[in-house]
Amino acid sequence: MPAFTRIDHIGIACHDLDATARFYRDTYGFEVTHTETNEEQGVREAMLRINGTDDGGASYLQLLEPIRADSPVAKFLAKSGEGVHHIAFGTADVAGAAAAVGERGVRVLGDPRTGSMGSLITFLHPKDCGGVLTELVESAAKPDGHA
Amino acid sequence: MPAFTRIDHIGIACHDLDATARFYRDTYGFEVTHTETNEEQGVREAMLRINGTDDGGASYLQLLEPIRADSPVAKFLAKSGEGVHHIAFGTADVAGAAAAVGERGVRVLGDPRTGSMGSLITFLHPKDCGGVLTELVESAAKPDGHA
Repeated sequence: MPAFTRIDHIGIACHDLDATARFYRDTYGFEVTHTETNEEQGVREAMLRINGTDDGGASYLQLLEPIRADSPVAKFLAKSGEGVHHIAFGTADVAGAAAAVGERGVRVLGDPRTGSMGSLITFLHPKDCGGVLTELVESAAKPDGHA
Repeated sequence: MPAFTRIDHIGIACHDLDATARFYRDTYGFEVTHTETNEEQGVREAMLRINGTDDGGASYLQLLEPIRADSPVAKFLAKSGEGVHHIAFGTADVAGAAAAVGERGVRVLGDPRTGSMGSLITFLHPKDCGGVLTELVESAAKPDGHA
């Protein structure tokens, strides 16, 4: 199985992306290093790079604000309120890793698709992962950490 | 303010520590690198080292199983079920960092006390942190990553 070599990010659902980014900057000194809108997932997101990792990547906080009421993050907020939405592990081969994890009986939620900063991602069913919605991430490129 | 230089760990609440550790080993290849019981917090815990970080530390998953019904983790499980319980940021000076964060209006939940692997820790009120129970961690020593 392709190895999982880092905590890639922690995804945090929020109602107001800009206010939450300000909170992380003012409280901890964490800066937004990337923003984008993912239409497919229905979110506006901000990536805050926290540290580099010894696989040549980096660990981020990912702040997520829904852009429509039927997005998964909007439903999460309606049910659970603001807080940690998912965690993500980095691998060099998300398709291979997802196939191997699937063979272990964990439900993989869809084929690899585009995530933050051009990465390839998929998700694992939280009911198969001890209540933790878990994302698998293959970065778009190596030299600059995550991206 | 003392800097926050890494995602130190993600704390995950579970009913069965051994079964959850097996899940993380069998699914992702993550190994338990440390176990201990924290009587004060009422938990048995397992640390799974995921990656080194560029501040000389490391990032872990921390699996938490309550050892008594009145522990905070037991109450979390009763209310929310298994899943992510808290996230933790690493700093070289938890007392100084907590004081600085407190000055920004975030409620600090108690003085620094002993956490995993001899670290010094404190927590921040989740209602002041966008729904995220947040821990601040000062590792016991530098050379070996977290500990």
